[in-house]
Amino acid sequence: MTAANAYAAQSKTSQLAPFNFERREPGPHDVQIEILYCGICHSDIHQVRDEWGGSIYPMVPGHEIVGRITSIGAEVKNFKVGELAGIGCFVDSCRTCPNCLANEEQYCDNGMTGTYNGRDKEGNPTYGGYSTQIVVDEKYTLHVSENLPIEGVGPLLCAGITTYSPLRHWNIGKGHKVAIVGLGGLGHMGVKFAASFGAEVTVLSTSTSKKNDALALGADHFAVTKDADTMKSLQGSFDFILNTVSAQHDYNDYLNLLNLNGTMVVVGVPPQPSIVGAFNLIGKRRSLAGSLIGGIKQTQEMLDYCAEHGIVSDVEVIKADYINEAYERILKSDVKYRFVIDIASMK
Amino acid sequence: MTAANAYAAQSKTSQLAPFNFERREPGPHDVQIEILYCGICHSDIHQVRDEWGGSIYPMVPGHEIVGRITSIGAEVKNFKVGELAGIGCFVDSCRTCPNCLANEEQYCDNGMTGTYNGRDKEGNPTYGGYSTQIVVDEKYTLHVSENLPIEGVGPLLCAGITTYSPLRHWNIGKGHKVAIVGLGGLGHMGVKFAASFGAEVTVLSTSTSKKNDALALGADHFAVTKDADTMKSLQGSFDFILNTVSAQHDYNDYLNLLNLNGTMVVVGVPPQPSIVGAFNLIGKRRSLAGSLIGGIKQTQEMLDYCAEHGIVSDVEVIKADYINEAYERILKSDVKYRFVIDIASMK
Repeated sequence: MTAANAYAAQSKTSQLAPFNFERREPGPHDVQIEILYCGICHSDIHQVRDEWGGSIYPMVPGHEIVGRITSIGAEVKNFKVGELAGIGCFVDSCRTCPNCLANEEQYCDNGMTGTYNGRDKEGNPTYGGYSTQIVVDEKYTLHVSENLPIEGVGPLLCAGITTYSPLRHWNIGKGHKVAIVGLGGLGHMGVKFAASFGAEVTVLSTSTSKKNDALALGADHFAVTKDADTMKSLQGSFDFILNTVSAQHDYNDYLNLLNLNGTMVVVGVPPQPSIVGAFNLIGKRRSLAGSLIGGIKQTQEMLDYCAEHGIVSDVEVIKADYINEAYERILKSDVKYRFVIDIASMK
Repeated sequence: MTAANAYAAQSKTSQLAPFNFERREPGPHDVQIEILYCGICHSDIHQVRDEWGGSIYPMVPGHEIVGRITSIGAEVKNFKVGELAGIGCFVDSCRTCPNCLANEEQYCDNGMTGTYNGRDKEGNPTYGGYSTQIVVDEKYTLHVSENLPIEGVGPLLCAGITTYSPLRHWNIGKGHKVAIVGLGGLGHMGVKFAASFGAEVTVLSTSTSKKNDALALGADHFAVTKDADTMKSLQGSFDFILNTVSAQHDYNDYLNLLNLNGTMVVVGVPPQPSIVGAFNLIGKRRSLAGSLIGGIKQTQEMLDYCAEHGIVSDVEVIKADYINEAYERILKSDVKYRFVIDIASMK
């Protein structure tokens, strides 16, 4: 067992505070990672505050984890001590269902094991990356390049793959007109990937203040969604819309911006279901789809792509004692574009 | 000009009644058709009663038209006098937009010209197939085989193509598990096509009374949607759902029946938008899509496929003076599965 320092929530109303626990000894297939940085995802806040129900306390959040391997089990084949490694949103899955066998573990028919706020196969709660140590089966561990600025890598493991995966699944690239709705943690990665893949990218945002950032991130165009004339002029103009917004909104406003055979993929989960008018789909054979993070194989592909193309998340690095304030700022969209905890501050 | 006998609605509250008008002389590109049969589509009732707004009166409904060519213009190349011909939901479109040029005239960016309740390029109202004559540009006219029972062909031009087109667009065939929701005019054609394409077909219906029919039409399985246990057991089991229901219903109930990467295509338009929960899409990368009839090229392909495979609509042939009663029976789903007017009864 290895002692780990962490930040945890003790209940849905408590602030994150220092917490100590022990990680298991690495089994034959495990790698042990000394965590260096962990991103803060909006879903951390939802789960800490039990907004999705079923939260397990104490909760150590964090699923955007990057660190260095300090120990490996006897059977580990693909990782060595001293290498950088990453852990994303899940640390296990059933490994036998058709989706696991198809490298789509995020859709495991028996339910993936969340990196935190889940239970492992022995029924023990899982603790995430707001901690100094983690032990994970090598099958659910990612290789991280030494060539990227490491503090920007953690968010690739959730915000990155969540946007990379649908852009790849729908084969987005040159010749496609793509809109990214919302310029936050997810949206800013969507812009980087879509632009890198060669698409013509428009950022749709409620706030004019994000225009310069959008263009700097690689967008070709920027439009304010509150401007009715602009929205009208954009009707039927996109092949693909990546909708990253978690706030309540009307899908129909965006569906109407799709051209014939266009698809809008939602990756955010608004608190209430949206309404969808059948005519808005039928009139141009449009699709409304959803996408959930990505499998381990595709996540590795994404990390390798990022290493090759110099892509990381834009981050604001914080110390652990700033987590609660960071949560409040996230709720006000006051971050460019991801908070990342410097885990050294927990030692 | 040619005198035509017809049945028309004079207002949104009036019954269909005999009406006389004149069809234009065939222009150089026109064919003139003596109508033999015309199907009754549920959308005829919506438009007669102005339930979608903007109805034009007097209205001669009907867009499932089959007849015999009696005259052709000097420039007509693809049709001869004496041949059978069909007219579907539209009789013109802009012919220049990208969708028209891609043989997807139903999605014409400038608006297709409806076979009835539309306005032609001169601004005159269009009159449909509840009439003895029609004159249409050959580009919007279909070839109809002499080898099919002709009274069952008319409904192929709306109910048929509306179900054929999405099954083809999403490449449905052998190895796919397909559900058809609703066994009415559209649904019964969906079953015939999906089964003919080699899919494993399940009919989902609110009524147990349709089981024997569903199996006779070619379905492999039948399930009653009001049975909660059945619906639970079917979760995640379909690759494709063709949802033909126009009554108000909850899309989420059906989205949850889709497997990973599954698509539900809606072809019916419920009176109010449905709600859609983002998790139901995201959790299995599902898609909700819509599809609108089909282009002229694909409609001809469908008619040729039907001729080759002996597929027609199951119909109840009526005389013109029964139209109003037929409307009431359609509203009670009391028809197997399409009323078709014997236009000889209008002479």
